[in-house]
Amino acid sequence: MATAVCLVSGGMDSLVALALARQQSSENALLHVNYGHLTESRELKAFTDIADYYGIRRRLIVDIGYLREIGGSALTDPSIPLPPGRVDRPGIPVSYVPFRNANLLAIATSWAEVLHAGQIYIGAVEEDSSGYPDCREAFFRAFNLVIAQGTKPESRIEIMAPLLHMTKKQIVQTGAALNVPFHLTWSCYCASDLACGACDSCLLRLKGFSEAGVLDPIAYAAR
Amino acid sequence: MATAVCLVSGGMDSLVALALARQQSSENALLHVNYGHLTESRELKAFTDIADYYGIRRRLIVDIGYLREIGGSALTDPSIPLPPGRVDRPGIPVSYVPFRNANLLAIATSWAEVLHAGQIYIGAVEEDSSGYPDCREAFFRAFNLVIAQGTKPESRIEIMAPLLHMTKKQIVQTGAALNVPFHLTWSCYCASDLACGACDSCLLRLKGFSEAGVLDPIAYAAR
Repeated sequence: MATAVCLVSGGMDSLVALALARQQSSENALLHVNYGHLTESRELKAFTDIADYYGIRRRLIVDIGYLREIGGSALTDPSIPLPPGRVDRPGIPVSYVPFRNANLLAIATSWAEVLHAGQIYIGAVEEDSSGYPDCREAFFRAFNLVIAQGTKPESRIEIMAPLLHMTKKQIVQTGAALNVPFHLTWSCYCASDLACGACDSCLLRLKGFSEAGVLDPIAYAAR
Repeated sequence: MATAVCLVSGGMDSLVALALARQQSSENALLHVNYGHLTESRELKAFTDIADYYGIRRRLIVDIGYLREIGGSALTDPSIPLPPGRVDRPGIPVSYVPFRNANLLAIATSWAEVLHAGQIYIGAVEEDSSGYPDCREAFFRAFNLVIAQGTKPESRIEIMAPLLHMTKKQIVQTGAALNVPFHLTWSCYCASDLACGACDSCLLRLKGFSEAGVLDPIAYAAR
């Protein structure tokens, strides 16, 4: 049982990953990253609510607004329209933020090395996901190799992605079994007051809750 | 001949890497990263002077002050003393900034993907270096794998570290042959007005110029 750095976006997946990390770690250090995305403030509120809920005081909130300057994604460039969601659409969606997860994991690894943490938890999902390349097992396997090569020999840090091969249904079921505060999370890509219910992220979430037979406790503008 | 993103710190190594990149690329996009290190402002000036010297307009200056918050290095935490340099000291020096190069390369890759750049140039040195783990060939090989797995299938981005197996002497010779503006660079870890001549970075630089039989055009407080 060691310290684990947990990436917590404020969404439902990273919340369930955190709940699983809490079972395996003596201490959790919560990392939240603002990257200039549209719903940044709402997700930060969700992060804070979740950290408060669990009484976790070790937190690091990092701003990497350069991803907005770099652009190339509908999440960070307002001039790229975010189309209505279609979770079965082939190819990489316009909401892909170029190499975002590598940026997040690099920050998490720097922090983990200083904290002498043994694990980094990330709520990435490959199976039932939007198709982002930096959410695949092959990516995380390669990143573990980068960590092994790029940190001190005595640092032993491993990425844990416990949801990687879960469906959204299984994630909801796992979270429900662990009694996670789903009501505090935010998933919508578009809105910050009332979830739109129509973007990729809302559709994937709603599908997960529906298939799991669990009531999604947040409110939606449209279903 | 494609666009190349070049990491330019303001030091002599990244300047020589840039000069080599200019021979292999149709366009260079210069990335400079402030990471809350002691000589941040001086290095930014060196970066700007170098970019102006070559008339390169595509620049991205990024602040990742979170590395200072994370600490764990004498370069980012003023409470960790930077001992006088000894370039033959075994082990990893206290100036190692945990996993810094992975943070830099993640940013560079995000930008490269949006620019459709084919290469990322970094002036890392393994042979005649301070012994940082994230400056080794094995690290860059692993990072290339992360890029291949974590970006779009059509993105083809490769890290180029042309100085990796050069000695400091060879780097100076290469730069001199390419007529690079060494006088604009900054290497000192400690000072921002007059280079100290005594830290690891100054000692490595002075050794390189001395062995190459080239006059180092910058001024030093002590030699």
